[in-house]
Amino acid sequence: MDECPFCLIAAGRSETEPVYADDHTVSFVPLRPAAPGHLLVIPRTHVADLWDLDGETSHHLTDSVLRVAHAVRRALRPDGLNVINSSGRAASQTVFHLHVHLVPRWEDDDFGDIWPRSPDHPAGTIAHAAERVRAALRSIT
Amino acid sequence: MDECPFCLIAAGRSETEPVYADDHTVSFVPLRPAAPGHLLVIPRTHVADLWDLDGETSHHLTDSVLRVAHAVRRALRPDGLNVINSSGRAASQTVFHLHVHLVPRWEDDDFGDIWPRSPDHPAGTIAHAAERVRAALRSIT
Repeated sequence: MDECPFCLIAAGRSETEPVYADDHTVSFVPLRPAAPGHLLVIPRTHVADLWDLDGETSHHLTDSVLRVAHAVRRALRPDGLNVINSSGRAASQTVFHLHVHLVPRWEDDDFGDIWPRSPDHPAGTIAHAAERVRAALRSIT
Repeated sequence: MDECPFCLIAAGRSETEPVYADDHTVSFVPLRPAAPGHLLVIPRTHVADLWDLDGETSHHLTDSVLRVAHAVRRALRPDGLNVINSSGRAASQTVFHLHVHLVPRWEDDDFGDIWPRSPDHPAGTIAHAAERVRAALRSIT
């Protein structure tokens, strides 16, 4: 049976050595880093994606993201930092244990712009989508 | 004197109508959305970037990101979601009031892969950067 590779890292049963670990989270270098200093932060517990994340775990995860972000700045003095979570294959998630990417950026790096050129959206599409989210928020809150 | 455009939105002194607002955070459609349902979540208080964010505010922000993410899923049924924070001009931050992007994704959207093709990093560069971050974490912790 295939085990989740990030659960293995969290359990210390992987060759990947954490850069940071506490009771609730672990941080480590991904298999294919996009830049030196590119790190992932994960919850120790198996959480598939953002929608699967409970409030308490989300706070632990946020604490570690901030802690590691400060360490990245102190250690590497990047010009910027992207923090990215991808939930779902369509969003480019490939390992289905929630992970937050921290990618230090430099003015002259080859990462480029993470944003697509803004496509032209049909008139009303944006406003209509926003209105549906607004209605969903009212029904959740 | 130029005022921060996101502080104006938080104060209700902008034409941008929030999709969600609570005591600590506001969510709204960005000026140039990359997709229908693309939303920003910001803290009400002026925080420049991730390094400027205190623990308590970060938890409020995380709570709202999760809340809006659930509403986006319920309202729009996307195939995925990218959550992105850009800190620093080199990371493509353009408004210097911290904001978290929520970008719903669909299998056939034109957003494409947010990741660059992994460049070849000189041997040792990745491990060396990780070791420096590890040392910084030890000195912070």
